[in-house]
Amino acid sequence: MIDGVRAGERRAIARAISMVEDGAADLPTLSAGLFAHTGRAHIVGLTGAPGAGKSTLTEQVVRTARAHELSVAVLAIDPTSPFTGGALLGDRLRMQTHATDPGVFIRSMATRGHLGGLALAAPEAVRILDAAGYDVVIVETVGVGQVELDIATAADTTLVVVTPGWGDAIQVAKAGILEIADIFVVNKADRDGAGKAARDLETMLTMGPERAWTPPVRATSALNSEGIEPLWEAIGAHRTYLETTGELHERRRGRLAAEVEEMVAQQMRTRVAALLADETQLLQDLDARRIDPYAAAGILRGRVS
Amino acid sequence: MIDGVRAGERRAIARAISMVEDGAADLPTLSAGLFAHTGRAHIVGLTGAPGAGKSTLTEQVVRTARAHELSVAVLAIDPTSPFTGGALLGDRLRMQTHATDPGVFIRSMATRGHLGGLALAAPEAVRILDAAGYDVVIVETVGVGQVELDIATAADTTLVVVTPGWGDAIQVAKAGILEIADIFVVNKADRDGAGKAARDLETMLTMGPERAWTPPVRATSALNSEGIEPLWEAIGAHRTYLETTGELHERRRGRLAAEVEEMVAQQMRTRVAALLADETQLLQDLDARRIDPYAAAGILRGRVS
Repeated sequence: MIDGVRAGERRAIARAISMVEDGAADLPTLSAGLFAHTGRAHIVGLTGAPGAGKSTLTEQVVRTARAHELSVAVLAIDPTSPFTGGALLGDRLRMQTHATDPGVFIRSMATRGHLGGLALAAPEAVRILDAAGYDVVIVETVGVGQVELDIATAADTTLVVVTPGWGDAIQVAKAGILEIADIFVVNKADRDGAGKAARDLETMLTMGPERAWTPPVRATSALNSEGIEPLWEAIGAHRTYLETTGELHERRRGRLAAEVEEMVAQQMRTRVAALLADETQLLQDLDARRIDPYAAAGILRGRVS
Repeated sequence: MIDGVRAGERRAIARAISMVEDGAADLPTLSAGLFAHTGRAHIVGLTGAPGAGKSTLTEQVVRTARAHELSVAVLAIDPTSPFTGGALLGDRLRMQTHATDPGVFIRSMATRGHLGGLALAAPEAVRILDAAGYDVVIVETVGVGQVELDIATAADTTLVVVTPGWGDAIQVAKAGILEIADIFVVNKADRDGAGKAARDLETMLTMGPERAWTPPVRATSALNSEGIEPLWEAIGAHRTYLETTGELHERRRGRLAAEVEEMVAQQMRTRVAALLADETQLLQDLDARRIDPYAAAGILRGRVS
């Protein structure tokens, strides 16, 4: 399968990503075999509130990348839901548009068995697509929560998508996404208030600390294919900035270290949970309020190794 | 300070919550002193996408609780942002409305130094308000990400607020919030599409597995004070359901165990991070792709105790 992925065989890639989703037992072997062949792709994260038009925008970016003769993989991260099973109609529709283009690979991903959830599964899946030779890997997430932000920022270039209707700049600040965007996209720019939303964002960006890279704000109307080329240019400009300043290498090094830390932290969490489940007396004392959470945690900590 | 909190003194309560925010060194002492005096308040979580009108809705619920002669504390959870410092205009405005009512306490909370972030800080702050004697404690969160959901579901009764304009039922499923709501609120019900949004939600709720409690869907227009009394009745009905079935005790026991597990898991994470920072050679090998993340995690895990 390692050879299949490296040769860009779609079936091998799809199966490798399923292994990541399932937390398959031989994932470490796959990881070891592919890791040396990663690092070439430009990883682009795309996040924003539900309903911001991220899927349509992603498809337009894919189209533009293809027009520039670059191959593209899209990893659409869905939260696991027992109702939908993570397979959403929209993704299946998108698949069809590019189904006959060998330079495009689109895959939605949920987690089933992967320990550590999407925050660990996503970078692994990205490395598979990177090793498979795609020039650009787009990671699209749903929502603006911490996990989604973690995933989106595990990219070289992070796009944050807002809409005029989504809320004002204060909402952006509230959601904590002002700090993580490399590029802001005001999508649905044909709607009322788009100009104001863009200006508000630009104003807020001047209010923070001095930055080496000031995130540009680009207006798009993905449904009408408007503003996509300027957005594409901004993505390229950010990549150039990352490469010329050495920040690309710096960011990637930091992300790898964070990933290893997260892996071990997850293993320790599993161990802690198993120990606690056996602590019948401690749990009873906690339930009866005879011992408080801090004291209980202290006792449990003493038993971890 | 423990006596002050138990006596319901506002200054003592405010200082105790600041201790939680800062992760103060004597937090375990405070926790130990208050824990035995908690468990009386009805904890109501309130979450939903930014712009859904959660703040206005919270204020209406506070008003209704007061009309029923119950005291109320509100804990508004804001993500920390270097731009806003977590202190938002809206919260200050809300403070003023109830500033002279001794039966209302409103506080917005961010995390500064608390290890483990809001997921651990929030239940601690809730216990302070519980021990202080408030009949109802409302925990309001921004966003629909995992951390926000974790906080909102650390309640006896979780309200999920959506709006007609926020998106359709598919978006709700995508965000993974269908499973966590005890009560759905379709706010801004004066807008177009409110009836459809409510019906869509009700339809989706019938599609899942059989439930002991089927979340009711309530339409409100918080700005116009409409639909609040029926929502209040639904909150009361859920409390009665929790008490008569024993699920209140069950949920609280589960939450306490989860909190202790999280505390120790966070301590272990801190330990893992400290160990990794000293692994210069390992980090260099990782950076040069001589060792893959799984193998690096295996080595690091062997060094944790």
